[in-house]
Amino acid sequence: MAKTSMASSFAAVLLDESSSVALYRQLYDRLREAILIGQLPPGTHLPSTREMATELKVSRHTVFNAFELLQAEGYVEGQIGSGTFVARTLPEELLQARAGSQNISLVNPEARPVSQRGKIITRTQIIERTGLPIPFMQGVPALDEFPIATWSRLVAKHWRQSPQELLNYGRADGYAPLREAIAAYLGPSRGVQCNSDQIIVVSGAQQAIDLAARILIDDGDPLLVEEFCYGAARAALLSAGARLVPVPVDEAGLNISVVADSTSARLAYVTPSHQYPLGVTMSTSRRQALLDWANRARAWILEDDYDSEYRYTERPLPALQGMDRNGRVIYIGTFSKVLFPALRLGFIVTPRDLVDAFVTARATLGWCSPTLDQAVLADFITQGHFIRHIRRMRTIYAERQAVLIDALEHEAGDLLEIKPADAGIHVTCSLSNRIDDRAVSREAAELGVVAQPLSAFRVDESVAVRSGLILGYGAYNIRQIKEAARKLGTALKDVSRVARTSANRRRASQ
Amino acid sequence: MAKTSMASSFAAVLLDESSSVALYRQLYDRLREAILIGQLPPGTHLPSTREMATELKVSRHTVFNAFELLQAEGYVEGQIGSGTFVARTLPEELLQARAGSQNISLVNPEARPVSQRGKIITRTQIIERTGLPIPFMQGVPALDEFPIATWSRLVAKHWRQSPQELLNYGRADGYAPLREAIAAYLGPSRGVQCNSDQIIVVSGAQQAIDLAARILIDDGDPLLVEEFCYGAARAALLSAGARLVPVPVDEAGLNISVVADSTSARLAYVTPSHQYPLGVTMSTSRRQALLDWANRARAWILEDDYDSEYRYTERPLPALQGMDRNGRVIYIGTFSKVLFPALRLGFIVTPRDLVDAFVTARATLGWCSPTLDQAVLADFITQGHFIRHIRRMRTIYAERQAVLIDALEHEAGDLLEIKPADAGIHVTCSLSNRIDDRAVSREAAELGVVAQPLSAFRVDESVAVRSGLILGYGAYNIRQIKEAARKLGTALKDVSRVARTSANRRRASQ
Repeated sequence: MAKTSMASSFAAVLLDESSSVALYRQLYDRLREAILIGQLPPGTHLPSTREMATELKVSRHTVFNAFELLQAEGYVEGQIGSGTFVARTLPEELLQARAGSQNISLVNPEARPVSQRGKIITRTQIIERTGLPIPFMQGVPALDEFPIATWSRLVAKHWRQSPQELLNYGRADGYAPLREAIAAYLGPSRGVQCNSDQIIVVSGAQQAIDLAARILIDDGDPLLVEEFCYGAARAALLSAGARLVPVPVDEAGLNISVVADSTSARLAYVTPSHQYPLGVTMSTSRRQALLDWANRARAWILEDDYDSEYRYTERPLPALQGMDRNGRVIYIGTFSKVLFPALRLGFIVTPRDLVDAFVTARATLGWCSPTLDQAVLADFITQGHFIRHIRRMRTIYAERQAVLIDALEHEAGDLLEIKPADAGIHVTCSLSNRIDDRAVSREAAELGVVAQPLSAFRVDESVAVRSGLILGYGAYNIRQIKEAARKLGTALKDVSRVARTSANRRRASQ
Repeated sequence: MAKTSMASSFAAVLLDESSSVALYRQLYDRLREAILIGQLPPGTHLPSTREMATELKVSRHTVFNAFELLQAEGYVEGQIGSGTFVARTLPEELLQARAGSQNISLVNPEARPVSQRGKIITRTQIIERTGLPIPFMQGVPALDEFPIATWSRLVAKHWRQSPQELLNYGRADGYAPLREAIAAYLGPSRGVQCNSDQIIVVSGAQQAIDLAARILIDDGDPLLVEEFCYGAARAALLSAGARLVPVPVDEAGLNISVVADSTSARLAYVTPSHQYPLGVTMSTSRRQALLDWANRARAWILEDDYDSEYRYTERPLPALQGMDRNGRVIYIGTFSKVLFPALRLGFIVTPRDLVDAFVTARATLGWCSPTLDQAVLADFITQGHFIRHIRRMRTIYAERQAVLIDALEHEAGDLLEIKPADAGIHVTCSLSNRIDDRAVSREAAELGVVAQPLSAFRVDESVAVRSGLILGYGAYNIRQIKEAARKLGTALKDVSRVARTSANRRRASQ
């Protein structure tokens, strides 16, 4: 914990001069309570008696008496007057008192209802990915390859120059130079047809999904999703009140024809460039079929293009948005995978007639993203650093993917099937359904390796289990990948052996 | 507009080798379209033919032919090969074509439905406050007094040191050292009882209100608000599906007893420290009555403590949260008014049993706030700059408020009643109901002064009109305040004269 100084204002400590309780005793009570509930953590440096007396407009004597009592009982230590600290080692009784005080405030949750929507939100599961990434944790780019020196230089430049108006509230749709830079990048690079008026800067894909769902559907509305789906997107869609309808996905991506005639859905959430988590790319004919459905059904398509800056095939497919001639596609992009996740910047490209709704919703949800961060990113793009970074990373990631696939085929080639991914920073390997992917995941975790089971990404219980593992490789160097692949191979062999043994036992006992 | 360079990847331009249309013609079509819809704005520097040929994996001749055709028709200009730019002055025909193409994509909005919720969101009105603030625009602090050198130094330090894990996704509840710093500040300064586990960092009060409403109420649920209410808060509550029930506010603040026995509301949104916009402070007995109601009704209180760091009275009142013994209050704070709005950081203090719901909802809405910004703020607080800034600003704001009140009484003392505000960075002055505050506001706008009419803050039509003006003074120096007060005085006198004249006419004609 950072050393906390209490050279802050104690002005709001409520002392009642008309009370029959002495002022020093009131102050003692208030400080003791703050220590007990952990608000003044152990080691906190309290203000001097003089400072506190001035703040509270009481005599210094009052403060001294309160401190003395606290010291006598072991709540504070040090020299009263200038160097008083909250006790670092609280006596045994204090620890008990603290536990007790926490229990008191933990009221039975059943008696403290949240809303129906609140219950749905609380039930959703979000996997946090903080700290240094562990192989093969997904969705994290190569943090050590980010050109931090270039970025820092731009940050410093902007803070040096920053005109006052950049400190004020920004525009809800985002900082204009950033929106222009994004529009100019998107057309040639991703085949997205838009100009900067249609771009709304948000805090990432997650916020974009939430915004779109809130604007386009009501509670209980059906919403089409790929039958295997990104967990956090699923959580956002459920939290916005959607009823998720899984649509089959095969090698050519989502197959709208299976549900097109039977659904009343008005929104479909898809990842056509690089299906998450299966990794397939939606074919041109499937894309056309999806657009045709949206046009007939007057439905919207939410295209999440989360990591397709990195494509490894000869001629990349443009975004679905670029094929759309009827303004049915809402396109989502994020800088979390291309730059770094802690930046919290992404964007939405909206059809023209939804711009107002999205801008109002963005303002309602929190006005805008931090302006200085947006200004730095705008420079990073227009000065060409962005494209240079993508080009450099494409080579690095292609190598990392190849190393991962080689290593896994070497370690456990007979137990898994793994196809090179056309794009992105993860691969999906298929296992025989005889091997329980959750068991492999647990076993790998024991060895310090993250291997998310494919079956965990099913939208609901109606979707057939496919055993597999989703492995992120973006954030790890060659040595880390090889080492983790070896451990994962061990986990796979262990689980497979157990599965075989118990199958043999079943056969033997029959 | 920043000069846009197209040294970016054109890799996604879709060229079909099997098509009967020549490749150069396909490329021409794609670029022409991008120019027409404004995706490649006038002046954009196109890549060299060599670069583009490499990107697209076509011959340089193909690119040259496409460029030549574009140049012949006036879409691009300059030297083909290296210095080709999108034409700065588009020929007359092009402008017409552009207008036409925009019309095509503007489909009848009636045929393009958003959800019921989307309609509510789109209907809400959000007043943007971007650029340099104009007197007496509210909610903006003194941007020119912010210690930008100190802040920049901390920013530079963090970028220099920033360990890789700070680039990854952060914790959904916020950066731990910041949460500890906030908890350590809140207790002594605002009388809030909490420890850092209860604190969730968000992007400002606006996001906090949205989160709370989504977790605690369902669509159509009644929600108590002060009868005059902050417009953006109102928009967020409406967008979350609330049915707003106005509760009377008098000199002692919101009076819960008027509705306590008749409402089934489970949430009340209040600004007890400094009612927005009326400016009154809720009395201790009214606070106790509100807490008693919440406890009886098992309701929640959302306390928005948006600007009470600046108090000008002798002994400040602690936050309502500090009086709450039953964990019924959700406390919201923001750094927009104390530091600067573009920072986009605020926080929620939740009762212990709502922590999980709020953290999950925060993750679902966009994971977390930018980590580096949080790290800088944590240092700013723990190193004492925060408290120093507040102390310094308190003096400056007290002076600005006094100057504003003096100036207004001097200019139009007979037409308005203005009481010193105990806290914050705005004052509310009352007008006779005979003077239409919206007319004054329009007249002031003509003179370049912002004066929001109090009647615009009524929650709904059922609330009795009170004529008045809400004037922000935080962001303006003495000279600006005096000058704007003079203009506002003129506007007031003009409107009052017209009102008197027409009243006289009515009397004369009777």
